[in-house]
Amino acid sequence: MSIEKLCINTLRFLSIDAVEKAKSGHPGAPMGMAAFAYVLWQEHLKHNPDDPSWIDRDRFILSAGHASALLYSLLHVYGYPVTLDEIKRFRQLGSITPGHPERDELSGIETTTGPLGQGLANAVGMAMAERWLAGHYNQPGFDIIDHFTYVVASDGDMMEGVASEACSLAGTLGLGRLICLYDDNNISIEGSTDLAFTENVPERFRAYGWQVIGPIDGLNTREVDAALRQARQETGKPSLIVCSTLIGYGSPNKAGTASAHGEPLGQEETRLTREKLGWQYEPFTVPDEALDHFHKAKASGTKAQQQWKTVFKEYSGIYPQLAKEFVAGMKGELPENWDKELGLLPPLPEKPMATRESSGIALNALAKCINYLVGGSGDLAPSNKTILKDKGHYSAKDQTGHNLHFGVREHAMGAIAAGLSLHGGIIPYVATFLIFYDYMRPAVRLAAMMGIRVIYIFTHDSIGLGEDGPTHQPVEQLMGLRLVPNLVTIRPADYAETLEAWKIAVRRNEGPTALVLTRQKVSSLDKQKTGKDGREVSRGAYILRESDPDPELILIASGSEVHIAASAAKSLKEQGIKVRVVSMPSWELFECQDAKYRNLVLPPEITARISVEAGRNLGWQKYTGDKGIAIGVDGFGVSAPWEDAYKHMGLTAENVVVNALRLLGRA
Amino acid sequence: MSIEKLCINTLRFLSIDAVEKAKSGHPGAPMGMAAFAYVLWQEHLKHNPDDPSWIDRDRFILSAGHASALLYSLLHVYGYPVTLDEIKRFRQLGSITPGHPERDELSGIETTTGPLGQGLANAVGMAMAERWLAGHYNQPGFDIIDHFTYVVASDGDMMEGVASEACSLAGTLGLGRLICLYDDNNISIEGSTDLAFTENVPERFRAYGWQVIGPIDGLNTREVDAALRQARQETGKPSLIVCSTLIGYGSPNKAGTASAHGEPLGQEETRLTREKLGWQYEPFTVPDEALDHFHKAKASGTKAQQQWKTVFKEYSGIYPQLAKEFVAGMKGELPENWDKELGLLPPLPEKPMATRESSGIALNALAKCINYLVGGSGDLAPSNKTILKDKGHYSAKDQTGHNLHFGVREHAMGAIAAGLSLHGGIIPYVATFLIFYDYMRPAVRLAAMMGIRVIYIFTHDSIGLGEDGPTHQPVEQLMGLRLVPNLVTIRPADYAETLEAWKIAVRRNEGPTALVLTRQKVSSLDKQKTGKDGREVSRGAYILRESDPDPELILIASGSEVHIAASAAKSLKEQGIKVRVVSMPSWELFECQDAKYRNLVLPPEITARISVEAGRNLGWQKYTGDKGIAIGVDGFGVSAPWEDAYKHMGLTAENVVVNALRLLGRA
Repeated sequence: MSIEKLCINTLRFLSIDAVEKAKSGHPGAPMGMAAFAYVLWQEHLKHNPDDPSWIDRDRFILSAGHASALLYSLLHVYGYPVTLDEIKRFRQLGSITPGHPERDELSGIETTTGPLGQGLANAVGMAMAERWLAGHYNQPGFDIIDHFTYVVASDGDMMEGVASEACSLAGTLGLGRLICLYDDNNISIEGSTDLAFTENVPERFRAYGWQVIGPIDGLNTREVDAALRQARQETGKPSLIVCSTLIGYGSPNKAGTASAHGEPLGQEETRLTREKLGWQYEPFTVPDEALDHFHKAKASGTKAQQQWKTVFKEYSGIYPQLAKEFVAGMKGELPENWDKELGLLPPLPEKPMATRESSGIALNALAKCINYLVGGSGDLAPSNKTILKDKGHYSAKDQTGHNLHFGVREHAMGAIAAGLSLHGGIIPYVATFLIFYDYMRPAVRLAAMMGIRVIYIFTHDSIGLGEDGPTHQPVEQLMGLRLVPNLVTIRPADYAETLEAWKIAVRRNEGPTALVLTRQKVSSLDKQKTGKDGREVSRGAYILRESDPDPELILIASGSEVHIAASAAKSLKEQGIKVRVVSMPSWELFECQDAKYRNLVLPPEITARISVEAGRNLGWQKYTGDKGIAIGVDGFGVSAPWEDAYKHMGLTAENVVVNALRLLGRA
Repeated sequence: MSIEKLCINTLRFLSIDAVEKAKSGHPGAPMGMAAFAYVLWQEHLKHNPDDPSWIDRDRFILSAGHASALLYSLLHVYGYPVTLDEIKRFRQLGSITPGHPERDELSGIETTTGPLGQGLANAVGMAMAERWLAGHYNQPGFDIIDHFTYVVASDGDMMEGVASEACSLAGTLGLGRLICLYDDNNISIEGSTDLAFTENVPERFRAYGWQVIGPIDGLNTREVDAALRQARQETGKPSLIVCSTLIGYGSPNKAGTASAHGEPLGQEETRLTREKLGWQYEPFTVPDEALDHFHKAKASGTKAQQQWKTVFKEYSGIYPQLAKEFVAGMKGELPENWDKELGLLPPLPEKPMATRESSGIALNALAKCINYLVGGSGDLAPSNKTILKDKGHYSAKDQTGHNLHFGVREHAMGAIAAGLSLHGGIIPYVATFLIFYDYMRPAVRLAAMMGIRVIYIFTHDSIGLGEDGPTHQPVEQLMGLRLVPNLVTIRPADYAETLEAWKIAVRRNEGPTALVLTRQKVSSLDKQKTGKDGREVSRGAYILRESDPDPELILIASGSEVHIAASAAKSLKEQGIKVRVVSMPSWELFECQDAKYRNLVLPPEITARISVEAGRNLGWQKYTGDKGIAIGVDGFGVSAPWEDAYKHMGLTAENVVVNALRLLGRA
């Protein structure tokens, strides 16, 4: 057996053995992909297993995350800290080898994949980040960022809409350092892809503006090598390499069938596969000869990073400021004085102002101090108020613009934002109407799971968007955001709260933050008078005002409805009711406070509580309790001027007062 | 002015005037699309405004729903019950002319559009339904179903992933009676489409297997007419007509600009547009000459339906059974004895059985009696257990198969299912893993808003799916389903509950139903012993068992966790605790019960309550109350065999017992 074959079969059998031992998993894809993956990792991928966080490494993304066993096998043989024991504990509790790859910078796993299409879109974001950073930080003779992003995609990835969106944008933006290896094996779970997928993928990608190479024989290492060389030479367009392969290659009875996809081969078929491929080693064996060969690639990676270090050291000497900023950005740190411009903004606006407008002001102030705050909207920038003034527009011709234009592609936007963040060096924000959060949920969930910094700007946050009607009016989305673990959602009530919300979002590095903002104007909560300065947002909820330190009723609200609650409280006070108003911009931040603070704001003994929020009531029982009342929107919205819509739904101070009096038995 | 120009300008100015009066809306698209819309409606569309529910009418879908003013104008001038007064009340509370079109069969609005891409995917579903019905009910000489589905799509529609998914599938399935008019105006909200969308749309659609016509001048009626003729002649492939148009056509200063898109032209620009187009009528005028001309089309529509009625009468005489079934299906009725086969199933399975498996049995039994129960999976049929045995597979060659293959395209699947339902004649079901509900949320929401019957089968419903890990384990999705207005979610606990859930889903005609099902096996709740027979599912929640008629503790659970609750109850009973177990498969159905029943199941005075459900706790406070405890999954899941995952998360009878004792102060 040639050394190549030995190495490729090592990857195949490590994968097969892992799946067999786990009695669960996907052997077929690793068996089919092993050859082209080997060529990529052995001959092309620029990486140093001893330092998986090397800034200028090539990024490798397995969008077909179900082939995780192959990724773990690659990481193991090339010397990343994924031990054989971990491979033996594939898919077991507490292992670092879960069913689908989970981002783990220490092990060399760049992103969490499995839900199809996501990894491909992440890769587009990484490739965008690479060019943006190159444009801003490289200097003549110093290409400190100059790497490729490789992504492996399956038929399933190609079918997902998020992939279409992302790849169309990649073509528009001319992302020449993005190379996709398409594992074209004609099989998906229900059988032949002819059942549902007869499109001409190469023609589709040419239509997007990609270089398309192949179809090549994805099992032939020479063809793969030549294709990769060709792909790397084209730096003006992304490249798709169509690799014809055979799912379950080597298995006499299962190769080329759907049954090779998602279940172990079984003892007998494993035996037959060993026989067919001439594999005589014990399970979980990496032959010494193969290991030596794999480690040659490792040696060249170590050398490459050494060279890079030398260059970067020199660069740092000549361009100390740039180097400092670059390193801080890559570490996810904020520059010194990052909030200086924000601090210079007037404490209050002159007139009522939509929180989306306040958000635009805050964003622009922050971007003046944080160069690597980069983002855009899904074709709604003028409405989302996300345009950064004098900061340029990212395009194929100028990949250094801060303003990104995603087109009407919310889902890809979400996944690309994750890619920008995962690459490092950029703090991404992306924007759309809150209703279109529904289009990008899978991407938001993965960002939360990965614990990465992405800022989502969701404007037009309720029936308050008015005339566009129920198709555009979010009702269940706000509570839906709160249901996502590790996502912090902030719905500020006015200008001051919005500025604070932005500070929190930019600082938060352990997960994404969603800012939920109004289309309609809101006045400023007169916090000066009550000793509040907006910084209470970081506590999630706070006492905005009260007519008596010992209230009998608490009104709790978020965002634009805080003003309704405040107005109702005024009426109630006039009727002699001792009432407290709590502004609650963020449930998650409030839950992080200690019990003392939470009980101070919402004393358990005060059970007369009313929530006011222009979204579904389900969930509010957590704070209103058994005796409380939730005033919200329990059906779909209506097309009408926003004031009419609010009145129609009972979201008025008058209705809050009526409910309060009834609750207190004074109706 | 020629009669054509007069008619087209009538449509333009009705739209302009409606937007001006509302001071809100989208004038630019109607102005650009009016010419091709006029040709379609005047010369090609087979419809009878006096009977918008005529079964064999051509379907017209405005996927670019923001151009709603054009649709209302068309409906008005062609004689549908959309009055001038309603057009004057465009976007006002209570009007039938909301900001985006909302399905209204009486007015001729086929589907609710606005969220981009959805209408195009709905249209694919309608075109699939048309061919399926034609294949099943047409007889030699009797083409009782033989119509086209026309859809108007904008640049924004083309960018959305859901459109890519749906159009790729439409090509695979050879839907020759689907014709898409693409309003190619090069403008989206942020400006030129070059910013984000330089792909070659015609080439992309050719890659999908479509006939592509054009680009033609979409403002030239002759070119449009010729293109439509060509499109109608190709019955083996769907057709895309690329209509180059000008957004805001006729406006001297705004034509061809983004500012024509989403705001009124304004008084002065309206005046200039009138001048430029030579329009001298009062606002909201339909000139008599134009009206006469429009009504010619109406006359031919009336005649066409008369002819169809004659044919259908004769058909009914020769094929009474087919005609009866066809009419019942189109009315959304179930055939007599629709649940006969379901009733013949054994009352209990022999062995523990996953509810997905029970669901497959129920579905096949129902499909034996309901011919028009049609559906499929997003490439997960073997896992979702949705294959109908001996019922054929829908393909380009055989469009009569009951089994649909959507490929890995959950979003399009959701929107296509809505189209199948909207067309009429089919009860659609679609299936995927619960986690991928996230990929199809916008489509589910619109089905709920429209109040149409679609059955979603969501299997692998919790961390109980095990080894595939957190990327595939739903956590927030179950509560997320409950947040959608007018969606009924049912999570049955065993075989018997699953059969009942299916009955409810098939019967429910006023909105969609989601069935949430396990991957892992569950035993049967021994209801015979307790006098329960499963029919309690229709009440949403019921007392499964109790150790005492006057319990001190209530355990509430759904789905697979009912078994944990039951097991905990057994332990607690042994410790002398008076405990009740409530199985709660559906919150929505429970909320529909009267207070008496609800208080019988969950008496307000019993405040010691524990919920057990493998999803997020947020929301459960509604039923557990101030003193209760929710036991669930509050972070993301883990990759592990399911029993290990459950143990790790504390979803065990032991943990329930510990919490119960603590709650009762006996720990």
